[in-house]
Amino acid sequence: MGWNKVAIIGVGLIKFGELFEKSWEIMVEEAYLNAINSVDKGFNPKDIEAAWLGDCRPGAHGSQTLAGVSLVGNIGLAGIPCTHIENGCPTGSDTFRNGCLGVASGVYDVVLVVGAEKMRDKSTAELLSLASQGHPIIQRGETAMTMFAPQAIRHMHEYGTTKEQMAMVAVKNHKNGVYDPYSHYRYEITIEDVYKSPMVCSPLNLLDCCPQTDGAAAAILCRADMAEKYTDKTVYVAGFGMGTDVFYVHEKEDFTEFVASVRAAKQAYSMAGIGPGDIDVAEVHDCFTITEIINYEDLGFCSKGQGGKLIEKGETYIGGRIPVNPSGGLISKGHPLGATGIAQISELFWQLREEVRASGGFGDPAINEKRQVEIKKGYALQHNVGGRGISNSVVTILTNKKG
Amino acid sequence: MGWNKVAIIGVGLIKFGELFEKSWEIMVEEAYLNAINSVDKGFNPKDIEAAWLGDCRPGAHGSQTLAGVSLVGNIGLAGIPCTHIENGCPTGSDTFRNGCLGVASGVYDVVLVVGAEKMRDKSTAELLSLASQGHPIIQRGETAMTMFAPQAIRHMHEYGTTKEQMAMVAVKNHKNGVYDPYSHYRYEITIEDVYKSPMVCSPLNLLDCCPQTDGAAAAILCRADMAEKYTDKTVYVAGFGMGTDVFYVHEKEDFTEFVASVRAAKQAYSMAGIGPGDIDVAEVHDCFTITEIINYEDLGFCSKGQGGKLIEKGETYIGGRIPVNPSGGLISKGHPLGATGIAQISELFWQLREEVRASGGFGDPAINEKRQVEIKKGYALQHNVGGRGISNSVVTILTNKKG
Repeated sequence: MGWNKVAIIGVGLIKFGELFEKSWEIMVEEAYLNAINSVDKGFNPKDIEAAWLGDCRPGAHGSQTLAGVSLVGNIGLAGIPCTHIENGCPTGSDTFRNGCLGVASGVYDVVLVVGAEKMRDKSTAELLSLASQGHPIIQRGETAMTMFAPQAIRHMHEYGTTKEQMAMVAVKNHKNGVYDPYSHYRYEITIEDVYKSPMVCSPLNLLDCCPQTDGAAAAILCRADMAEKYTDKTVYVAGFGMGTDVFYVHEKEDFTEFVASVRAAKQAYSMAGIGPGDIDVAEVHDCFTITEIINYEDLGFCSKGQGGKLIEKGETYIGGRIPVNPSGGLISKGHPLGATGIAQISELFWQLREEVRASGGFGDPAINEKRQVEIKKGYALQHNVGGRGISNSVVTILTNKKG
Repeated sequence: MGWNKVAIIGVGLIKFGELFEKSWEIMVEEAYLNAINSVDKGFNPKDIEAAWLGDCRPGAHGSQTLAGVSLVGNIGLAGIPCTHIENGCPTGSDTFRNGCLGVASGVYDVVLVVGAEKMRDKSTAELLSLASQGHPIIQRGETAMTMFAPQAIRHMHEYGTTKEQMAMVAVKNHKNGVYDPYSHYRYEITIEDVYKSPMVCSPLNLLDCCPQTDGAAAAILCRADMAEKYTDKTVYVAGFGMGTDVFYVHEKEDFTEFVASVRAAKQAYSMAGIGPGDIDVAEVHDCFTITEIINYEDLGFCSKGQGGKLIEKGETYIGGRIPVNPSGGLISKGHPLGATGIAQISELFWQLREEVRASGGFGDPAINEKRQVEIKKGYALQHNVGGRGISNSVVTILTNKKG
């Protein structure tokens, strides 16, 4: 059976988008309030004994560093410990992972994890300069695009993956985003739209890429054996894994998989005591369309090289064999780095509780429910990959089964 | 009895200073190698299952964010999880705390914690701009100096603390630094020297302040019940605490104590099942001389308002009732933010094992041993305080007793 030492008792997020009108402080406060108000049997904030804050780009809101007090001092919880984590694209999910370790350690019974990111208050050029790392010559010109585009080219060459299959990922995720009230974009697109959108870095057009999005998300965790105090519909953390990889391009052996993801998934499946066939629904890191296709393979949803065919056969649509990114994913919902992982977990919390209709009280229930997947085996998988040289990945497995 | 779920089996650091000749990568590698080579019965790096990296100012080495792979990819450990933590001045000690939670959770048996900071590669003005936070008008002009100097003035006013008592802290710590081969500064100073040094922010002269220092430190932790595999002289983590406080000046109620420290100490003493009278030696956060005096009170080494008299009576000198900062402290050894907490823990590891003479194989044993304190009750205390508005503190208690 799974690890199941930690329970999720509440989640909350804010509508993702270009939130020029909201300060960072307002964003985290709203996500936090939505999380505590979501706890079924009520929740006293005084129960929170420790917190973790995920925020990836300290420079994005005014060249600031962000000690954990920036969170707790801001939401009326000054006093308790708060750790600030930055860990590239998996910042949110690693923040969640550290919160789980805190509870499982026996030191804290109830903890808060919050992820947030201001991506639009500064120019993309400034944001990119913050992400540059490593040897100044070896890493010259390395951006997210120039790291992921060669993966697409190699995957096309090795396995016959097509531009059309990649575009299908964007079409699917935009369609799902229409049904998610928190999504940055809420409109459908066609394969033609992807082809006609500006070329950013061949073979990736603009609509193959996720947008720059502001957002925040929060979750409240407690010891599994305490969860009934707060809810009768507990979601448990069945397992998690985090993997890393070498980060310089010349050190990589394979351009068709993300080694960090494979490692993270292996740990998470092992801890949860299940395999890919047990997953009812997944929220995975589709920063680019090719990323989602490679994720299918790295996470074991299909065999190596078959990712393109998996989307082509419609198996990852809502209603398919293994629905992926019902929330709209990074491509439609958006990717506020620190928030993304916790927002994915929030979506899976609702999916496993079959509460997507409500979506935390946001949106039109009749529209929201169109993204509810069928829960059969009771397991859901969250995944992020990124960081310096695509060398960092977190996988989390949630379940509605007690153990 | 104490918590004692986690053992420290090895520590390592590099000589602190202005390390223009060493890249960040070289600094962390040297500290890591010193730590693994320090394990008594030998150590296979493959035993490390997870890592935490503390580094406070991502902008300090080229406007970079620092995902955890920057550490593990650099030291040949690509594959394992690595979380990057930033948490103001307690970054190093909070990194250690998260490593402890990781081991105590039962998920990882052996973990690595590394702290590092490049403080000198960029100008102080650039570094300060990175630390600015919060409301742009309310926080205007807030620097470390302008936060700590008013504390000194108020403490002088309330309790009769004197400039001379403050200077005595600098004299003591510089004297101790002479005996620490890792210390940035290794020369004695006099009270007159402090008075004659340039006024930085009244009443703090230059020699009341810690310098800007580059450095790195590492520690290897494991489950307490596994420690005998690695060493017969285990040091255990008896307890730890982390406290936060409101961060805007106008919200503070008292300018003569650091509320975050009081909260952190209370948690740590409670977890360790001891009180201040059980501490044989302490490494505390003397970013300024007044800080050490207030720490004496906040940590319970004397009653409120008596901190100045404690140093005046010589009780915190090596050989005194409660020796504080035998390593030279931040004032003499230096304060590379991410590294400081783990370097303090390294010093206390050697103190508790009565191995200061060797100091990890560095320096002249005949000089090193002059800073060895007498170990009576077997407990040592580490402390950091700082972050936005002096609102963030970590206290760690170590012991040589099995529990």
